[in-house]
Amino acid sequence: MKAARLNAFGKENLSIVDLPDPGRPGRGEVLVRFRAASLNYRDILVVEGKYNPKFPIPLIPCSDGAGEILEVGEDVSEFRTGDKVNALFAPYWIDGPASKKELRTTLGGPLDGTLREFAILPSSGVVLAPSHLSYEEASTLPCAALTAWSSFFVENRVKPGDTVLIQGTGGVSLFALQFAKLAGATVCLTSSSDEKLSRGKELGADFGINYKRTPDWGDAVRKWTDGLGVDHVVEVGGAGTLEQSIRAVKLFGTIHLIGILAGSTKDLNLLPLVMNQIKVQGIVVGSRNSFLAMNRAVQSAGLKPVIDRTFSLQESKEALEYLQSGSHFGKIVIRIP
Amino acid sequence: MKAARLNAFGKENLSIVDLPDPGRPGRGEVLVRFRAASLNYRDILVVEGKYNPKFPIPLIPCSDGAGEILEVGEDVSEFRTGDKVNALFAPYWIDGPASKKELRTTLGGPLDGTLREFAILPSSGVVLAPSHLSYEEASTLPCAALTAWSSFFVENRVKPGDTVLIQGTGGVSLFALQFAKLAGATVCLTSSSDEKLSRGKELGADFGINYKRTPDWGDAVRKWTDGLGVDHVVEVGGAGTLEQSIRAVKLFGTIHLIGILAGSTKDLNLLPLVMNQIKVQGIVVGSRNSFLAMNRAVQSAGLKPVIDRTFSLQESKEALEYLQSGSHFGKIVIRIP
Amino acid sequence: MKAARLNAFGKENLSIVDLPDPGRPGRGEVLVRFRAASLNYRDILVVEGKYNPKFPIPLIPCSDGAGEILEVGEDVSEFRTGDKVNALFAPYWIDGPASKKELRTTLGGPLDGTLREFAILPSSGVVLAPSHLSYEEASTLPCAALTAWSSFFVENRVKPGDTVLIQGTGGVSLFALQFAKLAGATVCLTSSSDEKLSRGKELGADFGINYKRTPDWGDAVRKWTDGLGVDHVVEVGGAGTLEQSIRAVKLFGTIHLIGILAGSTKDLNLLPLVMNQIKVQGIVVGSRNSFLAMNRAVQSAGLKPVIDRTFSLQESKEALEYLQSGSHFGKIVIRIP
Amino acid sequence: MKAARLNAFGKENLSIVDLPDPGRPGRGEVLVRFRAASLNYRDILVVEGKYNPKFPIPLIPCSDGAGEILEVGEDVSEFRTGDKVNALFAPYWIDGPASKKELRTTLGGPLDGTLREFAILPSSGVVLAPSHLSYEEASTLPCAALTAWSSFFVENRVKPGDTVLIQGTGGVSLFALQFAKLAGATVCLTSSSDEKLSRGKELGADFGINYKRTPDWGDAVRKWTDGLGVDHVVEVGGAGTLEQSIRAVKLFGTIHLIGILAGSTKDLNLLPLVMNQIKVQGIVVGSRNSFLAMNRAVQSAGLKPVIDRTFSLQESKEALEYLQSGSHFGKIVIRIP
Repeated sequence: MKAARLNAFGKENLSIVDLPDPGRPGRGEVLVRFRAASLNYRDILVVEGKYNPKFPIPLIPCSDGAGEILEVGEDVSEFRTGDKVNALFAPYWIDGPASKKELRTTLGGPLDGTLREFAILPSSGVVLAPSHLSYEEASTLPCAALTAWSSFFVENRVKPGDTVLIQGTGGVSLFALQFAKLAGATVCLTSSSDEKLSRGKELGADFGINYKRTPDWGDAVRKWTDGLGVDHVVEVGGAGTLEQSIRAVKLFGTIHLIGILAGSTKDLNLLPLVMNQIKVQGIVVGSRNSFLAMNRAVQSAGLKPVIDRTFSLQESKEALEYLQSGSHFGKIVIRIP
Repeated sequence: MKAARLNAFGKENLSIVDLPDPGRPGRGEVLVRFRAASLNYRDILVVEGKYNPKFPIPLIPCSDGAGEILEVGEDVSEFRTGDKVNALFAPYWIDGPASKKELRTTLGGPLDGTLREFAILPSSGVVLAPSHLSYEEASTLPCAALTAWSSFFVENRVKPGDTVLIQGTGGVSLFALQFAKLAGATVCLTSSSDEKLSRGKELGADFGINYKRTPDWGDAVRKWTDGLGVDHVVEVGGAGTLEQSIRAVKLFGTIHLIGILAGSTKDLNLLPLVMNQIKVQGIVVGSRNSFLAMNRAVQSAGLKPVIDRTFSLQESKEALEYLQSGSHFGKIVIRIP
Repeated sequence: MKAARLNAFGKENLSIVDLPDPGRPGRGEVLVRFRAASLNYRDILVVEGKYNPKFPIPLIPCSDGAGEILEVGEDVSEFRTGDKVNALFAPYWIDGPASKKELRTTLGGPLDGTLREFAILPSSGVVLAPSHLSYEEASTLPCAALTAWSSFFVENRVKPGDTVLIQGTGGVSLFALQFAKLAGATVCLTSSSDEKLSRGKELGADFGINYKRTPDWGDAVRKWTDGLGVDHVVEVGGAGTLEQSIRAVKLFGTIHLIGILAGSTKDLNLLPLVMNQIKVQGIVVGSRNSFLAMNRAVQSAGLKPVIDRTFSLQESKEALEYLQSGSHFGKIVIRIP
Repeated sequence: MKAARLNAFGKENLSIVDLPDPGRPGRGEVLVRFRAASLNYRDILVVEGKYNPKFPIPLIPCSDGAGEILEVGEDVSEFRTGDKVNALFAPYWIDGPASKKELRTTLGGPLDGTLREFAILPSSGVVLAPSHLSYEEASTLPCAALTAWSSFFVENRVKPGDTVLIQGTGGVSLFALQFAKLAGATVCLTSSSDEKLSRGKELGADFGINYKRTPDWGDAVRKWTDGLGVDHVVEVGGAGTLEQSIRAVKLFGTIHLIGILAGSTKDLNLLPLVMNQIKVQGIVVGSRNSFLAMNRAVQSAGLKPVIDRTFSLQESKEALEYLQSGSHFGKIVIRIP
């Protein structure tokens, strides 16, 4: 089978290779034919050896993908040949808090990822994809959408009438926007680009702030909410933006801390967290049961992921570079032959 | 001031009277001029002495209303003259579980209700009404809407993709329908009337069941959900329908038990509640903070209550009789001069 | 290996047989040598064909047990040979709400149960037992203790200072008593026997009511709580006692509905559930992650299950009859050779 | 009446004065005679003008106190003359998330505090004190105990078997220790003093770490929990200790961020919060309903606050200086004549 494989860390070491087919699924396993993969910033870090230099090499990168079930092993009753499915980032995390092993045994490192034609996965490692989505669209769900979903619908719930601040227009952020609107919330989006803000408004954002022109956007958000602050912040910038997020959030509000760009803060004042009883909640993708709940919502709402651009498997390196450029709006997808 | 007052229990003892004006608000109080009231089935029971025969007589009935602030007392900073407000059913229940006193000190009995021109209320007993609603529309919120809101957004939360079964097309049920749709859920409605079902669909219901033609509607609901059952049931029929609701609800699902028509069951089998880990949650209106949250949602969504018909204060008795007839779809409102 | 096997429904058809050993564990499996089993009322119903007449026959009954790991299969890293473990009633229910399949695939029917020397189980079907417990003691945990734990520590939480009413002195009830005391609650116990009440007090109960002498024990409980009612009721009697439980519970309180004796109510008035915003929560054992949390608590508290009497495998029928007699206080255990 | 009053910011400006008695309670108010006050670090900051330099001067400092009801105003049914009560830090915060006004209208600034003989308070501003406590003991509850209680029993719940790391042996920390033990948790305490650690163990701490000798105490805590990390951290040091707390806490664990010493971090790496799905929850005292629940628990457990030393009203300045010295273990109390 064809695969994009990393023979050593570094984008230049990503090459298209021919590998033996994986054989037949064992008990509790399924054989999946991937049709599309989608990229997350994590994939760049993995490829560059910055995410975890101990990941085994060679490695097939990319955590997200969609495909079809080619064969099911013994004792698998949930799936049939031909089913359109999503692969899970963390194929052993069923529900509740994950164990360390469940949380760290993930596709796209240390396990081989989705840039390949075939894979044998545990049946817990796939879920039925929403039927109205193409493989390309479905491939965007496993990390970006599920992270946004877990933020809003597992513990720190968004409800109708809540105000939500969402930073940026990357993959997680646009799903957060779509989910917040689906749940009846009012959304403010930040971006450095007026054009992206206006595309965000087409997707449902109620208000937009260009953080280049308004560096003190925390106060602008507070003003937008009549001085109250927002119920929820989707914080993807980490160290660089947390101070503004703390300004933007309401008494007793929640900052959903997402994304591996978090980095280190300098001179962060913790006092407002105490005085305003703010919660900062780290979010790392989500469980299989959350994925099932999310797909029901995506399906019943007919929600369509936003795809910026699609590449071929041969163009995997270019796809990663395009993601790195930061010029995208929504997800970047790689078609698997 | 004009008021509709009950001089003895029984609809025939409800008469329009002239009462002295209530004077000026004291510390922490507001003077409200009611402009509209809306009816709940509780009001009929109160008037007939069936709700609580110990309620003080004479009594001004009706728990729900909207009006404007005419004057604020000392130490009231939340309101200004001219504000459009809702009166609260339970004016001292702020948040969390209410004490017995907070839960039982309510408008429309034992406290005088909203069928009068003026009232002095504690400032905790009013909230700003959504600005896009007329007084008639706003008057429908205090019991019916807040009961539906409390069911879905306080503890046993509805989220996008959830399935919800709603019984009937009375006041609480139609708000439940509107709120469930606002929150991204999929809704099945039951009614004895095809015409009401089709009006329910115009309001967003995804599926309708005529329970006269389909007395085993629990199974029909289960079939509609591919055998899974619904996440939430809004149970307003009580004893007569609980068995079907238990059939309709999912493993680990919630039955929101609402309304004072509950009555007594006969031969209810409790075993499925245990075996399927079902929750039956009684709901009694809600707190002031829930009202504030609900009004934010109503406001930001531009949600409009469904009014069936509007009566004058002089027609209060006819309004109660019309409610009793059961032919309405949505709320019945009484205009206060 | 030796096993107690049911060749047809009916206690008289339970016989000690010699079966082939189960062989070696496959991938993800463990080989367990059972050392003790403990009985639940469900086991009687299963044996008599009243629980589910469609269960496959022949069947090895009994859902609860403890033993040691003899061998671990490939890919099992959580266990080692020699580990003392509990078998799980529902070996595929990891966390969160179970699917129907996870909830109904259980030991002691339809799967073979614990009255046998050896079993091959999925590794998800066992957890480490608390190290201070003997096999006999550990064998009591899977259903009785986990049901009590799930009631109090998953969703409807008991906290210090809460008042808890516990019905009876069977297996679930005594664990509920011990867990409630461990969590800092105040406990009232009911029983038909003064002697059992006084043994309950030795275990920590703060108050006891003989329901034979005080048939209106709901009011007695309310009086004990200065008229407020209790925060939690552990309802094991079902239909016969629910009305008293509703009297006993506080505004906004929780009735944990447990046990398969629930049966059918007659003339149950649902109105107080609504008016007092009471929650009735069915509870069906619990998930693997709950079992792990429970065992941590049992271990750190050094909590000891209450064993009434221990039988040999040959005396399995007598053990079931003794359970059926209702004279026990705590758990009935069967030693496996 | 006698009072300790601040005539300008600065401890040197705190003097004992004679003020007119406050008169009689109005509607919804109570007249309280304070018998004891207890100190929090906030009181030092207020006195020095560092907490909020805009607080009105002259000001009677100190937020915590206990006393007796001398007289109740009209419409107050919850209290009687002679009742032993606690004053609330935030007398208008009933339950749920507080509004800004409810959260910032607090005793000991901007409202006059507890270092005075008499006060008229809204009836919502007092609760019955546990009957087994002296005034001195009861005076310690309003801020320190309620902050610890709110951390563990409102949202991010401690349950039996949970592991809890508590920093230091100040007021909040010792209440956290007592409450965690009452709830069945296992506790590790940190201190710079072996003697304080050993007094902590007498109060129930299961493990102690001298952070002077073990500056990498986060790793020591992790080791103590077999590499898992603790379920809860009570973080009172803020900026200086958060990094170690993040090391100490479990996947999906909670860091309760408490106290106004929080300050500013430098070079805090946020990535572990994301990767380990950690929650950092700011806590600011608590609501009236939480106070009621806490007092029930304190009462039923017979829990006794730890008082380090008691001063007279005349020695108020010395009491503040003693608190500032940091040599105390538990609470510092001031007797009111």
